[in-house]
Amino acid sequence: MLDIIVLGSAAGGGFPQWNCRCANCARAWAGDPAAPPRSQSSLAVGGESGWFLLNAAPDLRQQIAATPLLQPSEGARHSPIAGVVLTNAEIDHVAGLLHLRERHPLSLYATLRVHQALDGNPMFNALDVAAVRRHPLVLDEPVDLVLPEGKKSGLSVRPFAVPGKVALYLEDASAGDNFGSQGEDTVALEVSAGSTSFFYVPGCAEITPSLADRLRGATLVFFDGTLWRDDELIAGGVGRKTGGRMGHISMSGEHGSIASFANLGVRRKIFVHINNTNPAIVADSPERARLVDAGWEIADDGMRITLPEQPVHS
Amino acid sequence: MLDIIVLGSAAGGGFPQWNCRCANCARAWAGDPAAPPRSQSSLAVGGESGWFLLNAAPDLRQQIAATPLLQPSEGARHSPIAGVVLTNAEIDHVAGLLHLRERHPLSLYATLRVHQALDGNPMFNALDVAAVRRHPLVLDEPVDLVLPEGKKSGLSVRPFAVPGKVALYLEDASAGDNFGSQGEDTVALEVSAGSTSFFYVPGCAEITPSLADRLRGATLVFFDGTLWRDDELIAGGVGRKTGGRMGHISMSGEHGSIASFANLGVRRKIFVHINNTNPAIVADSPERARLVDAGWEIADDGMRITLPEQPVHS
Repeated sequence: MLDIIVLGSAAGGGFPQWNCRCANCARAWAGDPAAPPRSQSSLAVGGESGWFLLNAAPDLRQQIAATPLLQPSEGARHSPIAGVVLTNAEIDHVAGLLHLRERHPLSLYATLRVHQALDGNPMFNALDVAAVRRHPLVLDEPVDLVLPEGKKSGLSVRPFAVPGKVALYLEDASAGDNFGSQGEDTVALEVSAGSTSFFYVPGCAEITPSLADRLRGATLVFFDGTLWRDDELIAGGVGRKTGGRMGHISMSGEHGSIASFANLGVRRKIFVHINNTNPAIVADSPERARLVDAGWEIADDGMRITLPEQPVHS
Repeated sequence: MLDIIVLGSAAGGGFPQWNCRCANCARAWAGDPAAPPRSQSSLAVGGESGWFLLNAAPDLRQQIAATPLLQPSEGARHSPIAGVVLTNAEIDHVAGLLHLRERHPLSLYATLRVHQALDGNPMFNALDVAAVRRHPLVLDEPVDLVLPEGKKSGLSVRPFAVPGKVALYLEDASAGDNFGSQGEDTVALEVSAGSTSFFYVPGCAEITPSLADRLRGATLVFFDGTLWRDDELIAGGVGRKTGGRMGHISMSGEHGSIASFANLGVRRKIFVHINNTNPAIVADSPERARLVDAGWEIADDGMRITLPEQPVHS
């Protein structure tokens, strides 16, 4: 069995964003029920024993406060959180690690590129290496997630590279069009427990034929829902970058995620990492209706999904 | 006029702390009204134009969500927050800067030691130097806080050194008893607008005669309320460090803050930066009653204080 909780469904900055009064944020600030607040992108995944966070959002303290299953339940010091798996080194996915200080034992999984990005910031020494064991993720190699004391958790992840880019604060302008990005900078995860699995793809610039093949027929995919249109930030007057420049595919358009998933036979498709500028972030927009018509859902903070064991066909 | 909002009243980790079920945290997790949740240590100070944050807590996004005066009110991108003044480089005082990314113009004030600590973490490049102007704080030199466009805000701060220590993640174990700490590592602030002023001292290991002289007769002091007893973490079985080792004076005891302030004639004395282990953090404890009897208050998240202009005596 796989137990999944959406801790945060918004892209970097959250919803509403601290300094934004775009049409969507203005509705969220006003408390419009069609525009509920969303914290930044993270899932919690529970197996037989313990929970693992998929990414650690800057809002993690607030997310734990909203999620009784992740709160301490025994002894003076305790947490049901056994570890964290990172998909990149962007602030919206790693800053939450700073909430997990206080010498608490944890297992931390990331590619070497992402571990190096953290190691380059002494502030993360707060996650004392004596307590927080660093584990490498290697592309396309499945790994059993272990509890801090070393026992298997019953969960495993297979990281794989997806089109994307290096974290914004590490961009190398001298390195040309891809800013020095490497395959290990942005990964997606296939998360498994027994015969059950799902995909977590919170950042992805393009659905390539090999990615489409991998996702085909999946039980459940959480997918990058940052933008509706590639030029959304520019058109809204709140930014200068396209989705492509930021490493994010758009939902709409000929090469967008909705069109690209149309014939993949994925049983349940849920957008996560929704940007505040995306018109589909509000419940009553025509864009939301279009994605629902196409069989998609928008994740909400606190959404919980339990995947039962799959019957094994012989 | 000086307008002050307590954004967060707890010490590092907040209350309840993510991995703690000490007697106090257990009550907070259970929703006990005598143990309301508290986010991490920060004040907002407003003058004639704009607000400045005194420290930027990891919970800043949530603090803005709880404080309509700090929310954007015009145009597509806007914030009433004009800048941030840091008193040290501890995670609970600086990680909130990572919420203020997105190329928003801000004025950032800190001592050179603290600026260097941030510069040593590439993640803070997210506060683009083209938008976020770094201003030095020099010990004992008053400085006018300027709005990002360069105009004076009407507020000024005078930083001064207080007994303390370097941020935990920067401690140099080879440097002896003080871990390489220097005077610029922990400062306190005297904040002024016109003829009105108050003191903000969120971290302080000892009340020296010179500090006592400085605070004597003050209108208002926000003071380090981390611990009730110096050995509180050890006695509670949740840590190995004394208050002295962490750079925090205790409230109680012969050399504690309550005794040391007894004859200073400070008109209003408010504890901030309260640790989850401090028995005075819950409203119905004998320790809370003792500090109230001694003329102290405990800050609550959202507490607002307006200091009128002082009449000028001629």
